[in-house]
Amino acid sequence: MSIDTVLAAAREAANPQPAGAPCVGDFRNAMANLGAAVHIITTDGAMGRAGFTASAVCSVTDSPPSVLVCINRNSSAYAATLGNRIVCINTLSASQQPLSAAFSAKAPMDRRFAAGEWIGEAGRAPALHGAIMSLHCRIGSAVPVGTHDILLCEVDRIDANPHRGILIYYNRKYHDIACE
Amino acid sequence: MSIDTVLAAAREAANPQPAGAPCVGDFRNAMANLGAAVHIITTDGAMGRAGFTASAVCSVTDSPPSVLVCINRNSSAYAATLGNRIVCINTLSASQQPLSAAFSAKAPMDRRFAAGEWIGEAGRAPALHGAIMSLHCRIGSAVPVGTHDILLCEVDRIDANPHRGILIYYNRKYHDIACE
Repeated sequence: MSIDTVLAAAREAANPQPAGAPCVGDFRNAMANLGAAVHIITTDGAMGRAGFTASAVCSVTDSPPSVLVCINRNSSAYAATLGNRIVCINTLSASQQPLSAAFSAKAPMDRRFAAGEWIGEAGRAPALHGAIMSLHCRIGSAVPVGTHDILLCEVDRIDANPHRGILIYYNRKYHDIACE
Repeated sequence: MSIDTVLAAAREAANPQPAGAPCVGDFRNAMANLGAAVHIITTDGAMGRAGFTASAVCSVTDSPPSVLVCINRNSSAYAATLGNRIVCINTLSASQQPLSAAFSAKAPMDRRFAAGEWIGEAGRAPALHGAIMSLHCRIGSAVPVGTHDILLCEVDRIDANPHRGILIYYNRKYHDIACE
């Protein structure tokens, strides 16, 4: 095997993009166009309390009531989330924008949680006080795709608050949908 | 086996919600809180041209560039989409709101497509003229969850247009994020 063959194999292993696929920068620019609500995903249990910010959350089916959440396997919240197998998906109101940054920074978990008020309950992940809604879920399974896992979450309780301005992240900026 | 046992089994089969799970109505009300961009998902190929409206679309990973789309297996576009294994994800601008209704009605495919202008290319699904962006994808796999499939889509080309007002569906109404 020639050195060129070895180097080509190493390059391919380091960069799994298929031939002709868009580069990472172009893909990330495109994904900035996917306007979406912002959520703080929390967990608690034997593997400890943890939380992270996510906008890659969507409804899957109402039979049984299920949503999905994408998580990077390098996330500092990954081990606790997968180990505890429960999450609370807290949809941020426009006034809760600072929580989005708090839970996406590299801060320790205690400092992240200090940015909000939480409603604790035995056997459940922390619910964020004042969130648009909190979905309490059990993680049914995790589907690995590249660097991420898609968590398939079965919703077993919904805490919904009266409507107020929702936070939308779009084009790398925060927006308040209540402006209309 | 008593008639009650048979009836209970039939009820369970017809309604797979686990005990204690929220009812379908409550779940759908909660999902209305998931503000999100609106997309027309198209396909073309040996199984014919088809398209449907979707807001359950999100970014998964940039290695390799992948997004997911949820589709109801009862959708009239399901067989063509899965059979052709290619899709184009067209993100609607605010001015393209009528297309959302056209592609979610029970209309025949030809009538749906008559509501927009399409850019055709051999071996690709139709791209919507004037969309915020069009992501050309190959369907890598489909993960069944209840009534739906999660389509894992590898992006192989991105056609992006200059920024304009994006359409957001939230609280069962359309919103234009460009208001800010």
